[in-house]
Amino acid sequence: MQSDVISDMVPPVSRDLGQSLCIITGASRGFGRCLALQIAGLLKPRSVLLLVARSGDKLRELQAELAASEAGRAGLVVRCVIADLGQKEAVEETVRAAKETCPIDIDRLILINNAASLGDVSRFALSFTDPAEVDSYLSLNVSSALSLTAGVMSAFPQRQGMRRYVVNISSLCAVQPFPSWVLYCTGKAARDMMFRVLAEEEPDLRVLNYAPGPLDTDMQVEARANTGDTVVRSSFSAMHSQGQLLTCEESGVKLMKLLLDDDFPSGAHLDFYDL
Amino acid sequence: MQSDVISDMVPPVSRDLGQSLCIITGASRGFGRCLALQIAGLLKPRSVLLLVARSGDKLRELQAELAASEAGRAGLVVRCVIADLGQKEAVEETVRAAKETCPIDIDRLILINNAASLGDVSRFALSFTDPAEVDSYLSLNVSSALSLTAGVMSAFPQRQGMRRYVVNISSLCAVQPFPSWVLYCTGKAARDMMFRVLAEEEPDLRVLNYAPGPLDTDMQVEARANTGDTVVRSSFSAMHSQGQLLTCEESGVKLMKLLLDDDFPSGAHLDFYDL
Repeated sequence: MQSDVISDMVPPVSRDLGQSLCIITGASRGFGRCLALQIAGLLKPRSVLLLVARSGDKLRELQAELAASEAGRAGLVVRCVIADLGQKEAVEETVRAAKETCPIDIDRLILINNAASLGDVSRFALSFTDPAEVDSYLSLNVSSALSLTAGVMSAFPQRQGMRRYVVNISSLCAVQPFPSWVLYCTGKAARDMMFRVLAEEEPDLRVLNYAPGPLDTDMQVEARANTGDTVVRSSFSAMHSQGQLLTCEESGVKLMKLLLDDDFPSGAHLDFYDL
Repeated sequence: MQSDVISDMVPPVSRDLGQSLCIITGASRGFGRCLALQIAGLLKPRSVLLLVARSGDKLRELQAELAASEAGRAGLVVRCVIADLGQKEAVEETVRAAKETCPIDIDRLILINNAASLGDVSRFALSFTDPAEVDSYLSLNVSSALSLTAGVMSAFPQRQGMRRYVVNISSLCAVQPFPSWVLYCTGKAARDMMFRVLAEEEPDLRVLNYAPGPLDTDMQVEARANTGDTVVRSSFSAMHSQGQLLTCEESGVKLMKLLLDDDFPSGAHLDFYDL
């Protein structure tokens, strides 16, 4: 009886993400791939999942896997955009694909800015004497995230009955400096601020900077192998050997819960370990 | 007697910045120009002050003013580099000029990364659909500061008897989002993190992120005239009409004191109002 009374008092929470257009960048592997698989299970039939990545083979493999999944069989539409977000055309192409494939009656728009590169972590800040190298890093990791977000949100402007979400896959590196990770830290700090400004400007948008924790992905392999700072490199190795890295799945589940619960303060930086 | 005893106990503090090479970017006007005039008075004879800016006329005017000043007459060497730090060549040219004009026996190297642009503050984040526009902003405001710092510090590596300082002219915008200032906030947040990483990596360097407060400069005129967000624009107008803007001189004095006292924690973000 007691528990029935309590459950009557709790407002019903929707455990799906409705009929959505969901765009995930960097979707061919790692965390992006995992998020695509997880979110697919939360989208109602006739939702559109738009996957963006450079690798066509891996993206099509994921598309096939999703088509065969319960969500795919129930009518989830999965589209691929094979494009390098370091190039201007990729942003335009993704926005165009979103417009072309999206049903007009979606009730949610979810953009997950996940694509990112680690940068050359074998070197220290004082080795970055060539501005062109820094420009190129920031173009992929900062400019494209802003321009894609701007393009997508402009293509699907605010309207009654539709909620719009912008997720930035952030990092502890957005708030804490790590030796020999100057490009990565700089890019993540830039992105966090960019999305904080966006949240201030557009109160109807739901903006989230989600730091997923140290994930057991190819990027971690790269970090363990190449990090120039020996202390940082050793700490990554220790996390790996002691089983402290997170699976993409367990971190993804927390992000899905944030989207489902939908009560995060817009613009917040939320870390896996704080949730 | 009492005061004599106390003054005997206080270690003598040098009230000059020794024989230095000091490089200031964005030196032709505003805060950069003011810092050039202030620091000139703190440099010992045969120091070199290297001024970098796009505007040759204004830079040469400042050079003449400095040559006629007490510091100039006492033997301060002032050199100009007329260059646009949004261009790769400008970084190389500045590093080359520093190497060419610098006496070998300097005891301080001071690089003040002041050059910056406001970006188009008339528009909101969702209007930045063109990544090339964002790229160009970040190139001048982020990449060039890293590459110039890397180039200069590599040209004058650590050696006994020389202290090296890197100042980043930061802003409240590095830590707080302002609507319609997405480029400026993003660039300043990126720079702060970049220099925090540098401070972690190079313990012998003295790195300072100095937020000078709202200065009564051309940039503020631009901010009052063009800021798209009406609340932010009004607050700038109010600060102006109520005499709350700071002069470059009063903010510069605090930065000079930080450099003279030389006890700030390397990598810190220090704001005029916190000092």
